[in-house]
Amino acid sequence: MKFELSQEFLDQLTDEIGVKNNAAISEKIGQLHPADIADVMENLSVDQAKYIYELLDEELAAESLMELDEEIREQLLKLFSPEEIAEQADNLDSDDAADLLGELPEDEIDEVIAQMEDREHASEVTELLNYDEDTAGGLMQSEFMCANWNWPVDKAVVELRKQAENVEKVYTIYIVDDEQHLKGILSLKSLLFASPETPVREIYKERDLHIAKTHDSSQEVVSLMEKYDLVSLPVVDRQNKLVGRITIDDVVDVIREEAEKDFQMASGISENVETSAGVLKHTRSRLPWLIIGLGGGIASSQIIKGYEGQIEINPSLAFFIPLIASTAGNVGVQSSAIIVQGLASKDFQFNGIFKQVGKESMIGLLVGFICSVIIFGVSYFLDADINLGITIGVSLFLVVIVAAILGAFIPLFLNRIKIDPALATGPFITTANDIIGLTIYFIVAYIVYL
Amino acid sequence: MKFELSQEFLDQLTDEIGVKNNAAISEKIGQLHPADIADVMENLSVDQAKYIYELLDEELAAESLMELDEEIREQLLKLFSPEEIAEQADNLDSDDAADLLGELPEDEIDEVIAQMEDREHASEVTELLNYDEDTAGGLMQSEFMCANWNWPVDKAVVELRKQAENVEKVYTIYIVDDEQHLKGILSLKSLLFASPETPVREIYKERDLHIAKTHDSSQEVVSLMEKYDLVSLPVVDRQNKLVGRITIDDVVDVIREEAEKDFQMASGISENVETSAGVLKHTRSRLPWLIIGLGGGIASSQIIKGYEGQIEINPSLAFFIPLIASTAGNVGVQSSAIIVQGLASKDFQFNGIFKQVGKESMIGLLVGFICSVIIFGVSYFLDADINLGITIGVSLFLVVIVAAILGAFIPLFLNRIKIDPALATGPFITTANDIIGLTIYFIVAYIVYL
Repeated sequence: MKFELSQEFLDQLTDEIGVKNNAAISEKIGQLHPADIADVMENLSVDQAKYIYELLDEELAAESLMELDEEIREQLLKLFSPEEIAEQADNLDSDDAADLLGELPEDEIDEVIAQMEDREHASEVTELLNYDEDTAGGLMQSEFMCANWNWPVDKAVVELRKQAENVEKVYTIYIVDDEQHLKGILSLKSLLFASPETPVREIYKERDLHIAKTHDSSQEVVSLMEKYDLVSLPVVDRQNKLVGRITIDDVVDVIREEAEKDFQMASGISENVETSAGVLKHTRSRLPWLIIGLGGGIASSQIIKGYEGQIEINPSLAFFIPLIASTAGNVGVQSSAIIVQGLASKDFQFNGIFKQVGKESMIGLLVGFICSVIIFGVSYFLDADINLGITIGVSLFLVVIVAAILGAFIPLFLNRIKIDPALATGPFITTANDIIGLTIYFIVAYIVYL
Repeated sequence: MKFELSQEFLDQLTDEIGVKNNAAISEKIGQLHPADIADVMENLSVDQAKYIYELLDEELAAESLMELDEEIREQLLKLFSPEEIAEQADNLDSDDAADLLGELPEDEIDEVIAQMEDREHASEVTELLNYDEDTAGGLMQSEFMCANWNWPVDKAVVELRKQAENVEKVYTIYIVDDEQHLKGILSLKSLLFASPETPVREIYKERDLHIAKTHDSSQEVVSLMEKYDLVSLPVVDRQNKLVGRITIDDVVDVIREEAEKDFQMASGISENVETSAGVLKHTRSRLPWLIIGLGGGIASSQIIKGYEGQIEINPSLAFFIPLIASTAGNVGVQSSAIIVQGLASKDFQFNGIFKQVGKESMIGLLVGFICSVIIFGVSYFLDADINLGITIGVSLFLVVIVAAILGAFIPLFLNRIKIDPALATGPFITTANDIIGLTIYFIVAYIVYL
């Protein structure tokens, strides 16, 4: 029942693939959950994966395909003819089928759709392909259960039983009028426990009906489902007709992807990349921020060059360049992270930009004071040069405050002009603060040593 | 139906609270979803929040309380007597009630439990309080629907109808034997569409039954529910008796919290802190890594000091200190982020440490080569000093490779010795790489200028 992938299991399976012992292979994997089969396939070569794939039941095969890591699915699909891909699409829910087709080259999509057997399903999938994947339309599936509000419970049960064959997971029944306009929801619980002749109209709920429109962003869908703890969300088109539903498992995937994207962005990785991606793809995703960082480093070098005279007189000033730059970077990253997180969870609805920046200034003041005192003490102890101690202590204090304010301000500003604030975390803030920090440092030094 | 909090709404509400127009207040908020009421309360003063809170229906009030931001709930609870808190706990699901009580001081908990009216509920809650909040037991609720496998469908429907009153959201019915051992699941769909006299034993499903044990970690629960797209997960105790269930909305919260924790850790924030927390709490969460960073800065200063002679001869060497240090930091953060993410999504089950470190070395080689060529060109153009160009180019190349390898190795190593690998991202890696990067830089300079 509980499957744990082991090296032993893989070795046995590989042996059986080697000798084409199909009965043994089917017995081993035919009863597994698609997610487990995908795990197994990810740990085999593409050819081995294809071999066991072809031994699976049609439906199980299609579902396992969708559970695969995207990179590996892509490799596998290259071995398939359009006809074979169409067969998979026939066996998938409309949203998964649309996702699958969306990964194919443009010209292949039409060919696959033309080959699909279930024409109604094919047209549903075609419909879904029109939506941007970051919208409610892109997340929804066309399979859902709905009942007309004029039906009595017993008729509804009969009709719903027919629909149930196509709907994998049923959480809620949507109640519509004759024009397919969404009127409310009916829980399976109420349907189960109502008497047969009651009209649906009398037991459905209008309250707590949450609806997405096809063009709502996936971010809006996530907020709505997360805030109201929904397991499914009906989707209506521009005419308010019910056209689909979004289920929580897809939203969990979106939450996970968003979190990974933010985490990567904060770490200076510019395109969403899986750990399993190739060396070239990883390199490409890392270069942009590194090159911007190099630009920042070159700018810093020119600032220091401008103060070359001071360094010649006081070489000790050069010693603390990394300390100033890295502290500025660290403080900036901390405050931008808090702001980005606050923006993501919509904590600032009615707290303006100024209030947040003010708060970060206070934190900067406190943090800066503590750091300055420490570093003044240490540098004095190390060098016994009171001027150097003052220079480092004062500039660190100023640098920390400025870094905290900038770290708060930049993401808030980006958000205001509708740019993803997460862009402002990580290397961007670090680079900006390096430059500003060094400038402050040398100005303070100039004044102290005047 | 769709509620959007506006400043106007808040102003009107504040006015009505001022003149104690209770009818108008109730009309405004009595029909809202608990999550929306919580939003409203978070934008009022504590006293105003308490005022409207007391006008709500008992159950709505308790649910709104649980939707509040933790900091604000804490403030509000301070205004409540143990008896009043007990009333809230009576109106909550067992898991929410346990969470609520868990936030109280130890001595108050017993008092509240003693005051709870529903004694059975009180003992369920007491039971739940025994579990660590990071375990399946800490996440589960005692409300679920279960049917004995010996019952026919019609009896099951009658029994389940009784249970349904206490269970807010029904997704799945658990099937148990006479000893309360979990045997399988029954979807509402199957129950709804089965004929009345069929024994439950014949329609329940054993396949795809996923179970958590009370002592499983919340991380295991999340993986299980995410991997298999579950909306609820039954929990059994050490004797395999069914004791609770975990629903997807609670797991979504865990995923969100985990993601925030990782993001904060990568940004050098050492304790989980809400954006709305106070200045002192923020300061406390930021100081540890900053002080470690200062330590790194001081270490860097001593390294540079060791090469003071070189800087006196070639002051230009000082110019590129920030470039070397920041690039080392950026590269290290990128590669540690990818590894941490890979570890979180369990991508490396069968790819050993060496394979990943090897891959990061390749990426480092490529990235390092490109960055070196760029920086050699730029520095030569800026200074026309071939030795300086060679020093920077060669040391940057080496620094990038070392940073990439360390960035990959450290989180993998921490994970191996069972320490959260996310600790290795952000400031830790930056600081370590600053020091190593500068050492490499000055050694290369020493050789080039020899």
